Amino acid sequence: MYCLLKLAPLFLAVAVCNGWLFGDFVGKQKEQDEISLWPLPQKFQSSAVAFKLSPASFQIVHAKQSSAGPSCGLLENAFRRYFEYIFGDLKKPEKSRKKVYDSDLVELQVWVTSADPKCDDFPSLQTDESYELSIDEPSAVLKAANVWGALRGLETFSQLVYEDYYGVNNINKTDISDFPRFAHRGILLDSSRHFLPLKVILANLEAMAMNKFNVFHWHIVDDQSFPYMSRTFPELSQKGAYHPFTHVYTPSDVKMVIEFARMRGIRVIPEFDTPGHTESWGNGIKDLLTPCYSGSSPSGTFGPVNPILNSSYDFMTQFFKEISTVFPDAYIHLGGDEVDFRCWESNPDIEKFMAQQGFGTDYSKLESFYIQRLLDIVAATKKGYMVWQEVFDNGVKLKDDTVVEVWMGNKMEEELQNVTRAGFTTILSAPWYLDYISYGQDWQHYYKVEPLSFPGTDAQKKLVIGGEACLWGEYVDATNLTPRLWPRASAVAERLWSDKSVTDVGNAYNRLVQHRCRMVKRGIPAEPLFVGHCRQEYKGL
Amino acid sequence: MYCLLKLAPLFLAVAVCNGWLFGDFVGKQKEQDEISLWPLPQKFQSSAVAFKLSPASFQIVHAKQSSAGPSCGLLENAFRRYFEYIFGDLKKPEKSRKKVYDSDLVELQVWVTSADPKCDDFPSLQTDESYELSIDEPSAVLKAANVWGALRGLETFSQLVYEDYYGVNNINKTDISDFPRFAHRGILLDSSRHFLPLKVILANLEAMAMNKFNVFHWHIVDDQSFPYMSRTFPELSQKGAYHPFTHVYTPSDVKMVIEFARMRGIRVIPEFDTPGHTESWGNGIKDLLTPCYSGSSPSGTFGPVNPILNSSYDFMTQFFKEISTVFPDAYIHLGGDEVDFRCWESNPDIEKFMAQQGFGTDYSKLESFYIQRLLDIVAATKKGYMVWQEVFDNGVKLKDDTVVEVWMGNKMEEELQNVTRAGFTTILSAPWYLDYISYGQDWQHYYKVEPLSFPGTDAQKKLVIGGEACLWGEYVDATNLTPRLWPRASAVAERLWSDKSVTDVGNAYNRLVQHRCRMVKRGIPAEPLFVGHCRQEYKGL
Repeated sequence: MYCLLKLAPLFLAVAVCNGWLFGDFVGKQKEQDEISLWPLPQKFQSSAVAFKLSPASFQIVHAKQSSAGPSCGLLENAFRRYFEYIFGDLKKPEKSRKKVYDSDLVELQVWVTSADPKCDDFPSLQTDESYELSIDEPSAVLKAANVWGALRGLETFSQLVYEDYYGVNNINKTDISDFPRFAHRGILLDSSRHFLPLKVILANLEAMAMNKFNVFHWHIVDDQSFPYMSRTFPELSQKGAYHPFTHVYTPSDVKMVIEFARMRGIRVIPEFDTPGHTESWGNGIKDLLTPCYSGSSPSGTFGPVNPILNSSYDFMTQFFKEISTVFPDAYIHLGGDEVDFRCWESNPDIEKFMAQQGFGTDYSKLESFYIQRLLDIVAATKKGYMVWQEVFDNGVKLKDDTVVEVWMGNKMEEELQNVTRAGFTTILSAPWYLDYISYGQDWQHYYKVEPLSFPGTDAQKKLVIGGEACLWGEYVDATNLTPRLWPRASAVAERLWSDKSVTDVGNAYNRLVQHRCRMVKRGIPAEPLFVGHCRQEYKGL
Repeated sequence: MYCLLKLAPLFLAVAVCNGWLFGDFVGKQKEQDEISLWPLPQKFQSSAVAFKLSPASFQIVHAKQSSAGPSCGLLENAFRRYFEYIFGDLKKPEKSRKKVYDSDLVELQVWVTSADPKCDDFPSLQTDESYELSIDEPSAVLKAANVWGALRGLETFSQLVYEDYYGVNNINKTDISDFPRFAHRGILLDSSRHFLPLKVILANLEAMAMNKFNVFHWHIVDDQSFPYMSRTFPELSQKGAYHPFTHVYTPSDVKMVIEFARMRGIRVIPEFDTPGHTESWGNGIKDLLTPCYSGSSPSGTFGPVNPILNSSYDFMTQFFKEISTVFPDAYIHLGGDEVDFRCWESNPDIEKFMAQQGFGTDYSKLESFYIQRLLDIVAATKKGYMVWQEVFDNGVKLKDDTVVEVWMGNKMEEELQNVTRAGFTTILSAPWYLDYISYGQDWQHYYKVEPLSFPGTDAQKKLVIGGEACLWGEYVDATNLTPRLWPRASAVAERLWSDKSVTDVGNAYNRLVQHRCRMVKRGIPAEPLFVGHCRQEYKGL
């Protein structure tokens, strides 16, 4: 580990060692541009020596030693994206004038070191996202085991570039060695309470990459609507979507989301929540849901998936067979939260079944009975699964590689303790329900959360593999989703990426102000943290 | 007063007399489209008889008897705007096919009845916004004394048009007689805490017209920045804006805002708040602000406008002379809120002055001394003025036509009582600070406010001329302003326009859901009230 501090009159030099900051974040905004990294890298060393970059001569290239080359579409795409982020709309000037526009730093060499660069793979929970970035004359070098680390390093490189007082792009001599603290850093979007047009989802994947998030938890269907167009059961969206054509995700839409995410190192984990939260499923699939009774006759309303019919399991088998092929990620989120027992209680057939099985009146046993069979069905597709915490709480037998998502705000630490004591991997979303809004800088609350603050052994803590910021859709659609999510979710991004010791809210504020302006400059309408301005304000509405 | 109720199988007929609703708002969304009026008119009668409208043959025209004709740019502009709102992107088909697309209703005749249609005027506090709308075969007639009522009636007409199951535009046989309950129905936007690009201001003026708001209270400058480019004192924005070129309103920007607003029947009342909230003024004008002292020497910081120097009043005289010519409205808002006395208290020259004047240590007397002189300066420009409630509370002598704005949430009713007992006109904004956000449907709180619930005589109640929804800018800029304002401000719009008896929140919910989808269809990213969807979702980001 190296650690060095230099001071310069114009540019504030800052050295960070293992996340510790030496130096104050003072001075005017223009002078802070080089310290606007978000999330903060693990090891960071920078000096006041600045190199000019010109769009006429600067290039992002594959290093000669790199295992990746021009055939690596993922990286080629990323090179273009980050070149545009850095230089905006600037065009290359005529060749004759090239000399005038020479760069001090002529290129960024991207060096993928492992034999297989993984250009055509999908990211996974095991993905190595570490990278090393060395910026010095005449070439900067970004070294990573594979494309996933290279993507993270490209984002960091682009964040290091700042405009000087003449509007010229500069980058300081810098060394960075970086890796994420947690492997699972997710955003949950809900496309059921409101349909989210593709454009909105893609824009937010773009913003996720700017914040080094790596999981899109797609809460794609729920009670309110079923926009997922199933090839096996097209009637699900035909009958269950808000509109069968305008408010659905076609197979090619889904493919596009997955590919757009892959290009940015983001996993797409779809959630098909059962047995509760399934009202919209019932429109298309006869007898899937439990008929509720009013006295001795059916009331005409329906409850959770009917757990006593073989047809329910036959349906789930076929349905999840499709899902397991459509979504390449190793995990599917199976939900399992908030099952309302009242309908089951009202139904005489369910009552009979409960007696046969010896469940007494404990409906959580019936829920577990259903979930257990569902898990076996999904396990047979060779997929791993994620579940909401209730599934664990109810004592369902889970596969070893199950990820339990802790979402209930009360007794969060106790739950983390219990889940990890039982040996299960877990992610945390309880403190990060971003659909709850309030006046002021609530990002600070999200920022101050320490996911490993619960009592437990080191082995238990290692089982906490990350967390998710959840933007449930009751009050959110295309009109307000993006500014509501950003930069509030950025607070979660840094908590999950940077070192545990990175907790200074004032320092975070200064960097986040600039990071949100950077997102705005890149076309993401991230809302302001407080009074102030961006050099380039949002150009949309 | 007429009142009639008809029922029809497909379309739910609803009659409203003086704001009372007969009929339930049930059924699916598609069937509710004809009852999506917002704000609800004073007198409304509709039947199930529906007329088709075709963009190929339907026209909005000047009635033969109208005092306005094609030379009335304001109305011509409005005809085009509302034609586009109604028919969207549909083009007129070829003439040869015209027969097929005949309308049942061939035209809307707009009949301005007074000799002077006021095409080139500016709206004012005295403006008559009433109108009568009669929709029947073959022509609909919109009758209003002048263009301002015609504008309101055009909005209502456009809201009555709905698509049937074939996507054809229909309008039901309807009679409406309408007028606003309150004359002053405003929106405050703050372009100082964050600069608001022109595009955002214009979009929100557009949305205001959709909600029959008629005052844009432009809180244009404050402590944080001074974006107003003054011709007399250009250094105010050169030194006081976030950026002297990109973050300012040029004279032609201001003209454009005023004209865009005028075309929609909206007054523009600028606020230049003094003596507090003026930090940004001090950058450009030497000695304008009070130097604060730390012990016996100046601390380098500055407080409110320096009230003991003649130069301050000379400046204000020149400055407000300009403002009074740039802004055509009869009123200027002079602020006068939240004056922090600590700086004045620290300054020995102020101390001396206080003693000379016999003010003792009552700094509110010094504040009043300043305000009094300022009011005299502004009165000399022949303008009326609005002030925040503190100016009244401190006993400043006000002109009879002063409008006092009640903004403090505590003791709001007591304040309304006091202000009106003293014979002053007042507007209410205390319950409508829309910058305060919370989870859920807070629009209902805004909706439930009754501005005249305070104890007082009829004469006192008449002095309450309206209210304003205020969206202060601490946490708001171009990225999130519009979805945060709409449709929450729509709740205030109906409270200020419709009859006192229109208070049914469930009914309002059903109409507002459709009204917000209409705004979305028209390009305004109004956020959702709750789960659901719009037939046409927001197409932006």
